Amino acid sequence: MGDIVGGEIVPEPLRVTLWNEFIHERKDDSVRAIYPDGMHTVWEQALHTHLGDAVSVRSAWLEQPDHGLPADVLESTDVLFWWGHIAHGEVADAVAAAVADRVRRGMGLVALHSAHYSKVFRLLMGTTCSLRWRSAHDRELVWTVDPTHPVAHGVPSPIVIPEQEMYGEFFDVPPPDDLVFISSFSGGEVFRGGCGWKRGFGRVFYFSPGDQEYPVYHHPDVQRVLANAASWVAPSSVRGSAYSADHAPTGWFE
Amino acid sequence: MGDIVGGEIVPEPLRVTLWNEFIHERKDDSVRAIYPDGMHTVWEQALHTHLGDAVSVRSAWLEQPDHGLPADVLESTDVLFWWGHIAHGEVADAVAAAVADRVRRGMGLVALHSAHYSKVFRLLMGTTCSLRWRSAHDRELVWTVDPTHPVAHGVPSPIVIPEQEMYGEFFDVPPPDDLVFISSFSGGEVFRGGCGWKRGFGRVFYFSPGDQEYPVYHHPDVQRVLANAASWVAPSSVRGSAYSADHAPTGWFE
Amino acid sequence: MGDIVGGEIVPEPLRVTLWNEFIHERKDDSVRAIYPDGMHTVWEQALHTHLGDAVSVRSAWLEQPDHGLPADVLESTDVLFWWGHIAHGEVADAVAAAVADRVRRGMGLVALHSAHYSKVFRLLMGTTCSLRWRSAHDRELVWTVDPTHPVAHGVPSPIVIPEQEMYGEFFDVPPPDDLVFISSFSGGEVFRGGCGWKRGFGRVFYFSPGDQEYPVYHHPDVQRVLANAASWVAPSSVRGSAYSADHAPTGWFE
Amino acid sequence: MGDIVGGEIVPEPLRVTLWNEFIHERKDDSVRAIYPDGMHTVWEQALHTHLGDAVSVRSAWLEQPDHGLPADVLESTDVLFWWGHIAHGEVADAVAAAVADRVRRGMGLVALHSAHYSKVFRLLMGTTCSLRWRSAHDRELVWTVDPTHPVAHGVPSPIVIPEQEMYGEFFDVPPPDDLVFISSFSGGEVFRGGCGWKRGFGRVFYFSPGDQEYPVYHHPDVQRVLANAASWVAPSSVRGSAYSADHAPTGWFE
Repeated sequence: MGDIVGGEIVPEPLRVTLWNEFIHERKDDSVRAIYPDGMHTVWEQALHTHLGDAVSVRSAWLEQPDHGLPADVLESTDVLFWWGHIAHGEVADAVAAAVADRVRRGMGLVALHSAHYSKVFRLLMGTTCSLRWRSAHDRELVWTVDPTHPVAHGVPSPIVIPEQEMYGEFFDVPPPDDLVFISSFSGGEVFRGGCGWKRGFGRVFYFSPGDQEYPVYHHPDVQRVLANAASWVAPSSVRGSAYSADHAPTGWFE
Repeated sequence: MGDIVGGEIVPEPLRVTLWNEFIHERKDDSVRAIYPDGMHTVWEQALHTHLGDAVSVRSAWLEQPDHGLPADVLESTDVLFWWGHIAHGEVADAVAAAVADRVRRGMGLVALHSAHYSKVFRLLMGTTCSLRWRSAHDRELVWTVDPTHPVAHGVPSPIVIPEQEMYGEFFDVPPPDDLVFISSFSGGEVFRGGCGWKRGFGRVFYFSPGDQEYPVYHHPDVQRVLANAASWVAPSSVRGSAYSADHAPTGWFE
Repeated sequence: MGDIVGGEIVPEPLRVTLWNEFIHERKDDSVRAIYPDGMHTVWEQALHTHLGDAVSVRSAWLEQPDHGLPADVLESTDVLFWWGHIAHGEVADAVAAAVADRVRRGMGLVALHSAHYSKVFRLLMGTTCSLRWRSAHDRELVWTVDPTHPVAHGVPSPIVIPEQEMYGEFFDVPPPDDLVFISSFSGGEVFRGGCGWKRGFGRVFYFSPGDQEYPVYHHPDVQRVLANAASWVAPSSVRGSAYSADHAPTGWFE
Repeated sequence: MGDIVGGEIVPEPLRVTLWNEFIHERKDDSVRAIYPDGMHTVWEQALHTHLGDAVSVRSAWLEQPDHGLPADVLESTDVLFWWGHIAHGEVADAVAAAVADRVRRGMGLVALHSAHYSKVFRLLMGTTCSLRWRSAHDRELVWTVDPTHPVAHGVPSPIVIPEQEMYGEFFDVPPPDDLVFISSFSGGEVFRGGCGWKRGFGRVFYFSPGDQEYPVYHHPDVQRVLANAASWVAPSSVRGSAYSADHAPTGWFE
């Protein structure tokens, strides 16, 4: 992330890759009306709005060779966003495994909405990642329960999302290392919708708002969360090489 | 907690003391109508319903000498319940300190509803324990987010409480060691209303339902939670003596 | 786990299956001298010593059909122990996946020593599970850092293990939900060697002592930990069926 | 922390106040030889070495009026360091309470070594903060168990401290929100010596190395930890005003 000068890091742009399944926007009129160029273009704009030149952004999607994530792309990505829904099963096992491996070596992952069921997220969580759901125009309120967490920086509590798909507990994930947001829905359900986990040298943030049928990613507060999440999962200096079991003779550290 | 036989514990009754401020029930007609003999009598019945002879129960309240908690009572208490509201300031500092000390030496504490602002709870948390609130007949739904936690055993998700005071985030407590229940309210707020913490050799469970103006402690699912919480905070074998800094000469354990 | 009577559970035996790779004991003279009938026979004796009739025990090993873990065995197992070392790669992917799935549906898992690198444990953790190591007759001291945790019940701090393989940090696992034991070694390393995690409706406990070249499982304090761990990961009442995403129409809980 | 421009924070110097009991250095020849101008002067140098102009530093000590911490100093302090040992009891209760209150409103606290027993730290933890100890020239090894944590940034694992007082478990603090370092000592003990907690809008980091009889704060890696800790506990944007229970009428957020 740049050279160390006087204990401070000289910033280089954070290299973000936005992975979008990118099917609904081309197939469903209702979704295309909201995201005519794909939801990843809205995320890109959100990142530039909040992070400016501190971020460089590429996009990738399912139908590209290697789903747009060949080794050289993954290795030059600091933070990967992931959104998928109807085609989780079409993501090649080898690509999902490579992404999970890259996270363990230090790449940050921001998993959005229905990515809770993606191969990548499930590989990293070790659980079913199931949840309750309903698409019935619920209002979602996103409450901050960790007000000093960097992902909540500058975000009002609650974020008011007029219409969203309902995601409800029990959300079958490991207890999060950081629980930042809890949502309520007009139907009464609650959901731990903003959660952070550490996996190896990498960080994962899951953020639940974002169903394709509602214009959630145009919401300015949601955009702020996307930018904050990118910054928070960004790798520290420990990264780039796999961690593996080393034989350690007595006194190796002396 | 009884003798160890073949690795199993032969149960003796769990010694529970129920501490109730016990002012509203005698002063306010609306509260007396719900709890004519004090809310502690309803808790006592709940514990016997679910734990039977495995529990022995005493009660204590504010106006008694030493608030009913002289040293011999505290020392012979395994689990203490605490409910207070309008008279937190009248609890003697020395009694609050003695209770907190007793928790650190292994006594379990179940803090109920407005006890979030009690001296005892704040001493153990180290924070302001503030929250948002509103008494406006909200419906409260109590959702289980840790389905295998002993305090959630046999409890439906959600518990539906037709009317309750609203308690909302941000709840200024340390991140709980165990987050078991999250409530939503008809007004849209959420609250981490079922939380466990370790403090020294003792355990603390906070359970938010229970405003005096609503018949919450008559609710059978709430009663089940009270019994589960008593069991969960019950001391293990490590208890009874203060933990203090010991000088440890080299090889003391050999 | 038996019928509910008056709020108490009438115990039925906990059904434990001990899975042992069972290669070293038959191939290496040095290991056979320590565990002539396999290390699982020593674990079985430990469980009966501490849990008596409260536990029923079966064993299974690698070379059996389905590695001794066909569906009917897994489904009738409450707690599974796992020890493997040189043949992790020979465990069929389908069996490893079935075991992980069974944990998510409520079976407890006790992963021992070199099982840190087993397929089952890695599937549940989502990380590499790497660590430093050295087999050089280090003395291991196992310190309790959570004295009221059930797995530490009746266990001295430290447990003194005269000779053991060294396992050292960084141990690449998710931050444990429960950190119970930390070991030090004469060479100076430390290791988070007693850790608990929740995964779906199941619990996992990892306990690091137990290299095949040292008589660790004959140590009475280690045996106590094995029994405690079996009890702690034992399933609660929520188990037996997969958790899956359910559509939840508005007001489904009313 | 500066103005927000394009989502980025324009840095102003972090305002650090170093609180040192400052008795041993003036009374004990052995300590004066190590820290002739007080250990706080070595910390100050360490902060400037690693944080340069990004930090402005003041010092305060016990014998000053209000122990050097009147309201205007506390209110203009972003991060407070605390070291005390033989005179914890001489710190006025009112000052300790004011410091704890200031932490809850967003000031960061770095508690060093024997500050584990200070009034301030105990008020924030809610526990006895006891531990085992021995001053016998043990070698201390400080191992990183959370390699991507900002406090571990640029720090070798282990840090080798040739001689130090031994601090050993059980360390009676709440389970840390962040466990960054675990130490071992030549005598065999282990200690969770690098721990972070959240308290209200503030963060606390405890770092155990630093007995006055050994030149620990001259160690370059220890100095790096001091600077990292200052940065990590530095307040985010949510700070400055007490959090208090607010009445929240229905729909207040709409």
